[in-house]
Amino acid sequence: MKKIFENVQNNKPLIHHITNYVTVNDCANIQIACGGSPIMADCIDEMEDMSNICSGLVLNIGTLNHTQIDSMLLAGKNYSQRNKPIILDPVGCGATKLRTETTFKLIEELNLSVIRGNLSEIKTIYNKTGNTKGVDAADEDQINLETIDNVIKMAHNLATKLNVIIVITGQMDIISDGKDTYVVKNGHPSMANVSGTGCMLTSILGAYVASNPENATKACAVATAVMGIAGEKANSYVEKHNLGNASLRVGIINSVSTMTEEILLKGIKIEKF
Amino acid sequence: MKKIFENVQNNKPLIHHITNYVTVNDCANIQIACGGSPIMADCIDEMEDMSNICSGLVLNIGTLNHTQIDSMLLAGKNYSQRNKPIILDPVGCGATKLRTETTFKLIEELNLSVIRGNLSEIKTIYNKTGNTKGVDAADEDQINLETIDNVIKMAHNLATKLNVIIVITGQMDIISDGKDTYVVKNGHPSMANVSGTGCMLTSILGAYVASNPENATKACAVATAVMGIAGEKANSYVEKHNLGNASLRVGIINSVSTMTEEILLKGIKIEKF
Amino acid sequence: MKKIFENVQNNKPLIHHITNYVTVNDCANIQIACGGSPIMADCIDEMEDMSNICSGLVLNIGTLNHTQIDSMLLAGKNYSQRNKPIILDPVGCGATKLRTETTFKLIEELNLSVIRGNLSEIKTIYNKTGNTKGVDAADEDQINLETIDNVIKMAHNLATKLNVIIVITGQMDIISDGKDTYVVKNGHPSMANVSGTGCMLTSILGAYVASNPENATKACAVATAVMGIAGEKANSYVEKHNLGNASLRVGIINSVSTMTEEILLKGIKIEKF
Repeated sequence: MKKIFENVQNNKPLIHHITNYVTVNDCANIQIACGGSPIMADCIDEMEDMSNICSGLVLNIGTLNHTQIDSMLLAGKNYSQRNKPIILDPVGCGATKLRTETTFKLIEELNLSVIRGNLSEIKTIYNKTGNTKGVDAADEDQINLETIDNVIKMAHNLATKLNVIIVITGQMDIISDGKDTYVVKNGHPSMANVSGTGCMLTSILGAYVASNPENATKACAVATAVMGIAGEKANSYVEKHNLGNASLRVGIINSVSTMTEEILLKGIKIEKF
Repeated sequence: MKKIFENVQNNKPLIHHITNYVTVNDCANIQIACGGSPIMADCIDEMEDMSNICSGLVLNIGTLNHTQIDSMLLAGKNYSQRNKPIILDPVGCGATKLRTETTFKLIEELNLSVIRGNLSEIKTIYNKTGNTKGVDAADEDQINLETIDNVIKMAHNLATKLNVIIVITGQMDIISDGKDTYVVKNGHPSMANVSGTGCMLTSILGAYVASNPENATKACAVATAVMGIAGEKANSYVEKHNLGNASLRVGIINSVSTMTEEILLKGIKIEKF
Repeated sequence: MKKIFENVQNNKPLIHHITNYVTVNDCANIQIACGGSPIMADCIDEMEDMSNICSGLVLNIGTLNHTQIDSMLLAGKNYSQRNKPIILDPVGCGATKLRTETTFKLIEELNLSVIRGNLSEIKTIYNKTGNTKGVDAADEDQINLETIDNVIKMAHNLATKLNVIIVITGQMDIISDGKDTYVVKNGHPSMANVSGTGCMLTSILGAYVASNPENATKACAVATAVMGIAGEKANSYVEKHNLGNASLRVGIINSVSTMTEEILLKGIKIEKF
């Protein structure tokens, strides 16, 4: 884990984002915070050049449109050809036909490394149908002690079927590549009160996977723990000082930027299956 | 007022935004802060699906373009058909022909529930011409003890004419549906130093109106007070700690997210006419 | 310097931005913080109207696309005709062909007042080729005691050739119009950990140049110092309270908004050549 963390800091990977305009600034600042360097570009004419200078690609469909879809597909092909990782965040998959169909198209046409979503989004991919409530998981789609075994099984099966790493985030986080499966129990429920904590983790995953190509699944688990520990620290700060969700947002990014190996190793709650 | 506040917390309405890319993150986080759930989508292919899953629509013309206008019109028709509220923020109406004409088109073609703007923007709608200074009210367009009677009359007449709730924000805030009129005296002048406090209030109005369909005008008045009280609290914090406008922005969202019935009922300065 | 600072506060210039969606909110809030008023608009139909009501134009190519390029060119022509200043931030010039070619096109077709970039971006313009690493300067492109003489020479030559003010930011900042050259030694290396500090300075330059037409080069130097001093103050605060890069972002904008003549005159580290 120490090595995985260090690789990001030493590598300082440049991560290309085609992402939504809601949480894009948070993605940029948390990318820097975790040790990477962000660049956002979605004009189709830049996709090939970007794939030459960047180490990985983050695709986030949070404010999707057709121009973006074209750029995502072209960028994805260029990164695939260069064997550079692509991370997909299927924001709101299941909420509208456009998002669901685009998710399937990206899965089909690109060589994705990681898909990160909440349980509703991942279930939509798994079942080819879903009931995502906007950008949040549906109320019945919770990861808890009752559901965890089924969620792990689904993650395992979907990862095997699609040959990607599946990262499902919620009260507990599941990471599986079809062989190794990790459960991460960091984080705090209040993180749901900040818009874009999922998007931010997806950005971090880009830096971690690009910097740890030989160890990508474990890197995803560590990245998820980094985000979770940051959420815990930020939540303590906010509660102590009686602040609110805007300070939680600031605190999460702060806590990623001040993360050390010591904090990570001491705070990480991870199990391998 | 207690009931209006509680309805938002219990309902947790999903509010669809077609909004500008400048203040969109603040709108998302303040939507969560006030008790709702935000989703931003502007691709025309998603408009119908969104109108099925969301409880209300916020239209904000702060960075307008033709693609957005088409989506606003289609979305608006779908929400109208479903009897779901539409809130319009005519940002910069009067500053450019595109914004002025689009505002009139949206008013004409859609069944709007609320229009919220500063005095210059609302005067432009009322007089069919205006001199908005960018996105701020013109210097001569101030709501004070001298002008208040005329502003109330205008709000009342415009609300009657257009059959919408008019919310005019400034040093004092006027809310009128042509029958009931409220004046809210919360807020602090320093709020003008944060980009997007108007946009943020418009987002909150979406949650309040969607959660209080039988009591929409009063809900607008309460929502306006929530924003104003948050501004007062944030301003006190910033002054006490000698901070600046970026902390004021954080503090406003924080204060909305920690708002309670007690804080609201104690702080609200409202008069009904 | 006192006069330059005061002119911005008194003038409160309305500055039109065509800018990227990553750091646009920071540009808006720092524009207010420094004394100006921001408006963001990129629809081609608004460009002429905007050029009538605004005092200056900021062009930032951080998330460039063809629609934006058309608007930049038309807006630029309108501002040029009205003798209003245009500030160009060639974000990522050298990283992709689209950005490099667009930069040259804007330089060729518009009457720019200022170009602000990091050393890699400005070298790309100077040498007609470059190796910008994403949106940051390449590792070899540092402004230090060894390189400063060459950088000053380049700034001087480029300013003369293009008849613009060149602002190069880095460990030290160089401002030159081909006659007068200033070196500003404010700022802190940690500012590189915040996405968009360059974009924010470009916004401030808009307000300073628009408010000081007779003294534009010195105004650029003072604006650069304002940003640097804000970075120093914010960094001290962040270090003292053991925070991170998200608080640094908030602190920089805060420190610009609480800047006074006294703080500026006491903190400024400027040399004229």
